[in-house]
Amino acid sequence: MIVTLTTDFGLRDPFVGIVKGVILGICPRVRFVDLTHDVAPHDVLEAALALESSIRFFPQSTVHLAVVDPGVGTARRALALRARGQYFVGPDNGIFTSVLQADEWAAVSLEAAAYRLPVVSRTFHGRDIFAPAAAHLAAGVALARLGPPVADPVRLPWPGCRKIGGQLVGEVIGHDRFGNLLTSIGAEDVRGLRSLNPVWVVLGDRTIGPIVSCYAEGAEAAASAVIGSTGRLEIFVRNGSARALLRADRGASVRVAPPPGLGDADDR
Amino acid sequence: MIVTLTTDFGLRDPFVGIVKGVILGICPRVRFVDLTHDVAPHDVLEAALALESSIRFFPQSTVHLAVVDPGVGTARRALALRARGQYFVGPDNGIFTSVLQADEWAAVSLEAAAYRLPVVSRTFHGRDIFAPAAAHLAAGVALARLGPPVADPVRLPWPGCRKIGGQLVGEVIGHDRFGNLLTSIGAEDVRGLRSLNPVWVVLGDRTIGPIVSCYAEGAEAAASAVIGSTGRLEIFVRNGSARALLRADRGASVRVAPPPGLGDADDR
Amino acid sequence: MIVTLTTDFGLRDPFVGIVKGVILGICPRVRFVDLTHDVAPHDVLEAALALESSIRFFPQSTVHLAVVDPGVGTARRALALRARGQYFVGPDNGIFTSVLQADEWAAVSLEAAAYRLPVVSRTFHGRDIFAPAAAHLAAGVALARLGPPVADPVRLPWPGCRKIGGQLVGEVIGHDRFGNLLTSIGAEDVRGLRSLNPVWVVLGDRTIGPIVSCYAEGAEAAASAVIGSTGRLEIFVRNGSARALLRADRGASVRVAPPPGLGDADDR
Repeated sequence: MIVTLTTDFGLRDPFVGIVKGVILGICPRVRFVDLTHDVAPHDVLEAALALESSIRFFPQSTVHLAVVDPGVGTARRALALRARGQYFVGPDNGIFTSVLQADEWAAVSLEAAAYRLPVVSRTFHGRDIFAPAAAHLAAGVALARLGPPVADPVRLPWPGCRKIGGQLVGEVIGHDRFGNLLTSIGAEDVRGLRSLNPVWVVLGDRTIGPIVSCYAEGAEAAASAVIGSTGRLEIFVRNGSARALLRADRGASVRVAPPPGLGDADDR
Repeated sequence: MIVTLTTDFGLRDPFVGIVKGVILGICPRVRFVDLTHDVAPHDVLEAALALESSIRFFPQSTVHLAVVDPGVGTARRALALRARGQYFVGPDNGIFTSVLQADEWAAVSLEAAAYRLPVVSRTFHGRDIFAPAAAHLAAGVALARLGPPVADPVRLPWPGCRKIGGQLVGEVIGHDRFGNLLTSIGAEDVRGLRSLNPVWVVLGDRTIGPIVSCYAEGAEAAASAVIGSTGRLEIFVRNGSARALLRADRGASVRVAPPPGLGDADDR
Repeated sequence: MIVTLTTDFGLRDPFVGIVKGVILGICPRVRFVDLTHDVAPHDVLEAALALESSIRFFPQSTVHLAVVDPGVGTARRALALRARGQYFVGPDNGIFTSVLQADEWAAVSLEAAAYRLPVVSRTFHGRDIFAPAAAHLAAGVALARLGPPVADPVRLPWPGCRKIGGQLVGEVIGHDRFGNLLTSIGAEDVRGLRSLNPVWVVLGDRTIGPIVSCYAEGAEAAASAVIGSTGRLEIFVRNGSARALLRADRGASVRVAPPPGLGDADDR
């Protein structure tokens, strides 16, 4: 059984190791895959996006444990979900928003005491509630035994893009370790627009240029755009950091539009 | 079999991977759990505290490999220990101080050549001595076969707290990735004092306030205190970093005392 | 089966986790060992050196997946190699240079569609081509089935040292997390020279001194030299960082030469 982990715990403290110890104590055959533990502290959207880009590459029955949990110890619910043949365990704060876009899903609130640690703290539910639930699911316990059903899990406003005139209008939603800027504009949105006319990418009021096919086709020391491996439009600098060069961060406006000359004509 | 790893090797170099390769070459069924590899270089106490907060969450027979080893290549002994039904392998420099507080333990000096790599360097005993010992223990080799008994393993002065008048007096012992300040004052010490009168927490000469129940109950942008998941009193800033806000580090004085008005009266 | 991973993906994004998910979907019994994911972005030589120091500590049949791939999406080939009883999978850009120094090796170009993901992007071959190939090798698929043979894999100029007069002349090739400077001068080169006369180490025009046996023998707050665990001459500062103290980086000249007085005489 595979259990993936997505947290904002970092790796300098033993939090992640403790969670794994609890899981192995319940289900010794688990194989762990760390998705990331470097989510910015309390940044639920960042964790939700990491899950969205990862889960389709894991086999059926994988259990995805995701704990970015600023509300630990409060009345926020603790969830386990089943969707797309996989399981998801974490706080009810929107971290599973993309999963809830599946046609079918089931969710429960983790209230059954038998599937928690005997003592539950109010500061580390990753260890005391979520790890045991993930381990029991991996060991084959039925979802419904973990607690009562939940019909209305929390959902985050999900970053997308709008089509306005002949343009796609979206935003920067994050960056990766290479300094590539990830956008809310998807490959399919771009494909639809591109089939009609040539397109350029614009970040704020800065023209980036056309969409190239791979990083090595980018101009040296200038920003370029590409459909990245997550299926999202990305802005990058070949052998450099777009984030550093363009000083853009989450929320910056991104447009896919006809090239300058054409665009002026089209817009009228 | 589970082998946990606690080191100051960092993750940018292949040191940790090499140690795991050596172990898997001897005992292919091992499952690894990294506790931390980001211990500050040569900070034996930090590693010892990471172990203390983690080991109770691992099953019986787990082997804990811990290598923070400024004395590598010198005459310091190499140890394997059995305590609480688990095993511990690392340098004899105090890294296992908390483990030695168990009622019963046994220790040996890792001298048997059959349980080391054929060539032992003087710069990487993690690879050449400790990894093979951990692997052989995981594979079922008896502790006594690894070398002669050790009766007096090195112990560090262990951070604790004193009760002075109606107060607990301790210190900051470290911090975590969120900037929470970890103290040497334990949950039980606080419980004893609290049963007598209300208590406030004071860091240096700065009053933090009463002890709240979870992070979300902390004041916004001000420091609060909580009993953290390790069973220690922590000072934190909700959605922020206590370490950055208070500029406090290891050794800073922390007191748990009656609240200001009451306290003055009590102290006289 | 063991699969090791060496990349410049970092750990803040889920790239490494996604690669592992793909592999486990094909070969569920794999055990992963991360060598490093902190190779400087696009630094193929750094990854090649990490592999060189690690692979001999892994058992036969280990599959080493190494992806530092600035040319992803271009015409550069994708390789799988067999050498020393182990397997290697990654881009054909010199990352396996040290492996190709083996007496015997076989290489293929990863072109067989059956051993790739159904959809291959032009931005993430680690996921779409290299991970599946590594997984199939781990599952027992014969190397030759992955694609046509390659007779001329790319090799990097490999850092070494020359013997000039009575001296060894090499260079700094990198550093580790402790700030130790790794050099291109090997233990055996030094052994040859040392058997003839006493030797000192010189970095640029700065005399470091003789070669000590372990880190603890180094002078406090001054640089010393040692044969490190990788079998390379290293320059270090005991309880400090040689890199910070000496402000030396890759390419800086390093010499092993007779001590000052002797050296002048010898050179004539």
